[in-house]
Amino acid sequence: MGNSYGKIFRITTFGESHGPAIGVIIDGCPAGLHIDEAFVQSELSRRKPGQSRITTQRKEDDTFKILSGVFEGLSTGMPITIAIENQDQRSKDYSHIAESFRPSHADYTYEVKYGIRDYRGGGRSSARETAARVAAGAVAKLLLQKEKINIRAFVSQVGTIKAPHFSTMDLSKVEDNIVRCPDPATAEKMIALIDQVRHDRDTIGGIVTCVIDNVPAGLGEPVFDKLHAELGKAMLGINAVKGFEYGSGFEGIAMRGSTHNDAFFRDGDKVRTRTNYSGGIQGGISNGEPIYFNVAFKPVATIMQDQESVDKHGNAVTVSGKGRHDPCVVPRAVPIVESMAALVIADFFLQAKTSRV
Amino acid sequence: MGNSYGKIFRITTFGESHGPAIGVIIDGCPAGLHIDEAFVQSELSRRKPGQSRITTQRKEDDTFKILSGVFEGLSTGMPITIAIENQDQRSKDYSHIAESFRPSHADYTYEVKYGIRDYRGGGRSSARETAARVAAGAVAKLLLQKEKINIRAFVSQVGTIKAPHFSTMDLSKVEDNIVRCPDPATAEKMIALIDQVRHDRDTIGGIVTCVIDNVPAGLGEPVFDKLHAELGKAMLGINAVKGFEYGSGFEGIAMRGSTHNDAFFRDGDKVRTRTNYSGGIQGGISNGEPIYFNVAFKPVATIMQDQESVDKHGNAVTVSGKGRHDPCVVPRAVPIVESMAALVIADFFLQAKTSRV
Amino acid sequence: MGNSYGKIFRITTFGESHGPAIGVIIDGCPAGLHIDEAFVQSELSRRKPGQSRITTQRKEDDTFKILSGVFEGLSTGMPITIAIENQDQRSKDYSHIAESFRPSHADYTYEVKYGIRDYRGGGRSSARETAARVAAGAVAKLLLQKEKINIRAFVSQVGTIKAPHFSTMDLSKVEDNIVRCPDPATAEKMIALIDQVRHDRDTIGGIVTCVIDNVPAGLGEPVFDKLHAELGKAMLGINAVKGFEYGSGFEGIAMRGSTHNDAFFRDGDKVRTRTNYSGGIQGGISNGEPIYFNVAFKPVATIMQDQESVDKHGNAVTVSGKGRHDPCVVPRAVPIVESMAALVIADFFLQAKTSRV
Amino acid sequence: MGNSYGKIFRITTFGESHGPAIGVIIDGCPAGLHIDEAFVQSELSRRKPGQSRITTQRKEDDTFKILSGVFEGLSTGMPITIAIENQDQRSKDYSHIAESFRPSHADYTYEVKYGIRDYRGGGRSSARETAARVAAGAVAKLLLQKEKINIRAFVSQVGTIKAPHFSTMDLSKVEDNIVRCPDPATAEKMIALIDQVRHDRDTIGGIVTCVIDNVPAGLGEPVFDKLHAELGKAMLGINAVKGFEYGSGFEGIAMRGSTHNDAFFRDGDKVRTRTNYSGGIQGGISNGEPIYFNVAFKPVATIMQDQESVDKHGNAVTVSGKGRHDPCVVPRAVPIVESMAALVIADFFLQAKTSRV
Repeated sequence: MGNSYGKIFRITTFGESHGPAIGVIIDGCPAGLHIDEAFVQSELSRRKPGQSRITTQRKEDDTFKILSGVFEGLSTGMPITIAIENQDQRSKDYSHIAESFRPSHADYTYEVKYGIRDYRGGGRSSARETAARVAAGAVAKLLLQKEKINIRAFVSQVGTIKAPHFSTMDLSKVEDNIVRCPDPATAEKMIALIDQVRHDRDTIGGIVTCVIDNVPAGLGEPVFDKLHAELGKAMLGINAVKGFEYGSGFEGIAMRGSTHNDAFFRDGDKVRTRTNYSGGIQGGISNGEPIYFNVAFKPVATIMQDQESVDKHGNAVTVSGKGRHDPCVVPRAVPIVESMAALVIADFFLQAKTSRV
Repeated sequence: MGNSYGKIFRITTFGESHGPAIGVIIDGCPAGLHIDEAFVQSELSRRKPGQSRITTQRKEDDTFKILSGVFEGLSTGMPITIAIENQDQRSKDYSHIAESFRPSHADYTYEVKYGIRDYRGGGRSSARETAARVAAGAVAKLLLQKEKINIRAFVSQVGTIKAPHFSTMDLSKVEDNIVRCPDPATAEKMIALIDQVRHDRDTIGGIVTCVIDNVPAGLGEPVFDKLHAELGKAMLGINAVKGFEYGSGFEGIAMRGSTHNDAFFRDGDKVRTRTNYSGGIQGGISNGEPIYFNVAFKPVATIMQDQESVDKHGNAVTVSGKGRHDPCVVPRAVPIVESMAALVIADFFLQAKTSRV
Repeated sequence: MGNSYGKIFRITTFGESHGPAIGVIIDGCPAGLHIDEAFVQSELSRRKPGQSRITTQRKEDDTFKILSGVFEGLSTGMPITIAIENQDQRSKDYSHIAESFRPSHADYTYEVKYGIRDYRGGGRSSARETAARVAAGAVAKLLLQKEKINIRAFVSQVGTIKAPHFSTMDLSKVEDNIVRCPDPATAEKMIALIDQVRHDRDTIGGIVTCVIDNVPAGLGEPVFDKLHAELGKAMLGINAVKGFEYGSGFEGIAMRGSTHNDAFFRDGDKVRTRTNYSGGIQGGISNGEPIYFNVAFKPVATIMQDQESVDKHGNAVTVSGKGRHDPCVVPRAVPIVESMAALVIADFFLQAKTSRV
Repeated sequence: MGNSYGKIFRITTFGESHGPAIGVIIDGCPAGLHIDEAFVQSELSRRKPGQSRITTQRKEDDTFKILSGVFEGLSTGMPITIAIENQDQRSKDYSHIAESFRPSHADYTYEVKYGIRDYRGGGRSSARETAARVAAGAVAKLLLQKEKINIRAFVSQVGTIKAPHFSTMDLSKVEDNIVRCPDPATAEKMIALIDQVRHDRDTIGGIVTCVIDNVPAGLGEPVFDKLHAELGKAMLGINAVKGFEYGSGFEGIAMRGSTHNDAFFRDGDKVRTRTNYSGGIQGGISNGEPIYFNVAFKPVATIMQDQESVDKHGNAVTVSGKGRHDPCVVPRAVPIVESMAALVIADFFLQAKTSRV
């Protein structure tokens, strides 16, 4: 329950932070897709811990093994299983939370719900699970690349430091710095802030913005499975996410319809819109304009400070941060956001094949 | 595809704005629930058009008929079907859009996706469909009332006019005014703004905030089906919604973990948190604190003004607003938000029955 | 739970035998399909009660109304809702089973499971529900007709009276007699047997055989959702069905592989098989040969005789058959078997659109 | 698509016959279940190849590794992943079918559907996949053992050699001989027949009968997801299965209702039936009596003889059996049938927890 995503291009992830392995089964990937393993690895490396001084120092190569579904380099239509062994667990760092609940973590809720939890490294609730999503997302991206659909995310805000509007930046520069903000000046400030926060043994939140170009008109389903509703669910399912908005988002509230409406016009043989407050989605279905959305991440819950809490017997305790953690999650969240977006788009791309007789 | 919601308490809605009827099948409602028809009707009446001067003047009684699943006043465990006949359609108001696309509506995307659309009143993409959700949501509320779970939504913002924080207002006063803001002074300003906007033949956006009290700890599933991810999907699936945030939401970005974390303490025989930036949800699972979230609505796309557009042949056209429409959708959206929240919570409530041996 | 069938072409049925209406929502029917209402009606008429002296004498026109999803005669891609009002209920015929359980009916199991049941006419467990399936099946057939896929069922056995092998009969003659067996001599014997059984105030079982021609190779999914597994589930879900076999079926047990294997050969530009013990399905996927299968129906449980039973308080009671019932279900089951087959094939036809990049 | 089974207790299997590993993810196993690894291994050993002279001589230990979802011996509510490495593949035995289609195998249909197939050992269509089902079925059995539900299958027919009725045999003796028939005299004849068939380089079919005791009344869902419909689908999804019948099955056809109906009577504080032609299921829901059903297996398609076929270019070819294969599949199918039955019952057991308020 809850470990699968997608209707046709459907993934099921497994694994805990300190178990033998994490991984994913992708069921429903069409046959005949070239599975570029180097690309999958490069995507995993964008997410892996220890990649820079502003991320956790846990060392994981995140090398993967394909257990099924690929033959002579091509997908066969059978379930594709990708497994990643855990290597650098330090479970002793977590013995202090075997009985206590870290504030704003999942320790308490898992304990109440299941009566048992693998507390080591946060178990299943650890963001380590997202490596499996990135592996699956890489396969989805390979499918979408054939359609020239292009998904790019970047860090648009850390604390109160905001990047310029995405339309004014060169999004090909996202990987040029460790915070993954394509504006160099803003990136510098963001990195300085994260350095400061880490020095303060604290954490800070941020926003990841994602832009998807070249989505054909017609993806998304009516009523409950609107394209943006699925994007929202997919993003809100990422650890530490607190909010989602697309197109004009929360700012659109204050606008009047006469300004907010996107006038249609003809551009060659295409129908386009003068503005794009719709964020590329109308009535829950893509209209061919760029899709863009913001994902809000809270400050990471693990801080290197003493905090008030209780243990499973209800006793008051002090919990202190241990282990190796990110002072700000957004730089590593960029490939995760892209991966979940790729999974959503790939699934709707396949669903759309049956829309008409 | 896309017309069903929920895993165990699962609804499927049907119907178009100007078709013979709209309605819903609820599959998975436990047997033995008293179906209070007066309550269902009262919920539908909170959503129905023509209820005040600041809503559309379409006249629909929205009286419903139960076609199945209820016997001698009780649910039988069989699918409950609720149908609402359409009465006050004025399809001739829509002949001008049989071939043209209204800006920021679903006309264009439906045409591209399906090659055919029932243009009358927006067909399936009309917010009239949400009456079916409210009927189903009323049944979900009846189930949750037995558990003392209490869902209350209200208008917290119209344009730039904001209500005070919900913790400072008396939420029992939501129905005391036509805009459904429990703060009388703010309500007055909101109503004045909507009057002005309507007078300007324009529309305006807003926010609906929802608070859910007394949810037991343990609802929600890990990874993809987190409680807030499903709430987000459910809200984003409502017509005109552009954003969703829960707990600290987008404001939490700028906070530090040391402030944002919700310290646990013991309160009698309960574990509680000192603050509630988590919004009652940790690791995707309810922790027993109040759940609260904001839903952003764009300005309604139908305005009584001429707008640039194209027709289905690609010709430039001018589209003028006709028909009867809401200048601001949020007052009528309040029961819709509550209904979708009820459906989410009811489904997770049932799912949680199998979490442990 | 349990009232929906299909993944992409997905139906949800509703309604009880003596409620206001029964019906179905079809979600996932591709847009642009001509919905031939006369054909839907003709299919319903093949199933309706009172059609001949060997069926129940309940009188239902089974006229239907389309509530949604069809515009100007074409499917729109939106959910298609078909409702059929109940007319000739005689609920007083059932007051004697309000508290007692009819042997080999669902009365006892529904009571135990739900604690409440609509006993009138068997409520939801009545075969009246299958009218909704036939309506949906008719739409599926319309989709398949465009692909030249042809589904024909007939009565191949009543009691111990068996028809010749289907390959020796003219299946276009199924509707030529009231028992729906295409061999006139066998049909006569079957009708005589049913007349005798009815005269004895008893009931008898039978077999419906179904043959599907022109299914393209490649329909069906590996492992759990094999084409014959879904056919089996669909048939076993029909009231009174006790068994399913396809291709060589139970007789294949005693054969040796060297006889049973279907040798491949080339026939023009097609690959065909010399024999067809596989029943047109290999590895769960259609191979282009005719699909055929048998469905075993038990004798109807309602008999016009006194039977030993208990009531809901555990007291011994005698239950006597009342109401109007079929002495043998198979003649009316023919269109139901075809409808469920059409739903299975239509769903796999749509699923197959995403098998390859 | 097609590689998952179950709604709440839901499994997804993966892997090919000659890939690195096969395995399964179980999502939805309740937390707190003791996962007895020795029991899981013993179940796998009942299915493994090379266990006796009448099975294939491929040597696989089928030792497994749990990759997730179990902590300190207990299920945690997280997905349980079980992987089994392949060891004794001899892929060179299969080079002859890289281009040719074995009669009555899945070679041709997979080629047509996917345009690519892992031909080595039959790839995904190999019965090797069923080891993953047995591993998952073992976990389901552990869940059911807590409820005292007991599932036992055995070989009731090989070719035309039939065992006595199950009610006359001691089912605890199933494992006493290599053919898994609890009647020693019949077992001897079955073994002799299989020896003969193997000596003839041929294969033979058979029946596995399964009996499930102590299922509580109330499992199963109405209409499409009837208990026997799911059992049927589950069994028909096993490799080589051609038919399914429960209770009176195909023999019930010739009976009259007055004989076939199972009269209710009171037995102490229980309601029981005098006969059990219903096979423990009425209206698709268990009634507390023993559930029993038959599963028909065709003769294995791989025979050690030359057979007519075509290759992927449409050329006529002769295909000769190579590799190591079972002359009769039913002895090893016994634990597979039990496993699929356990998965069905476990899923309905969990579904039933939400039937009533």
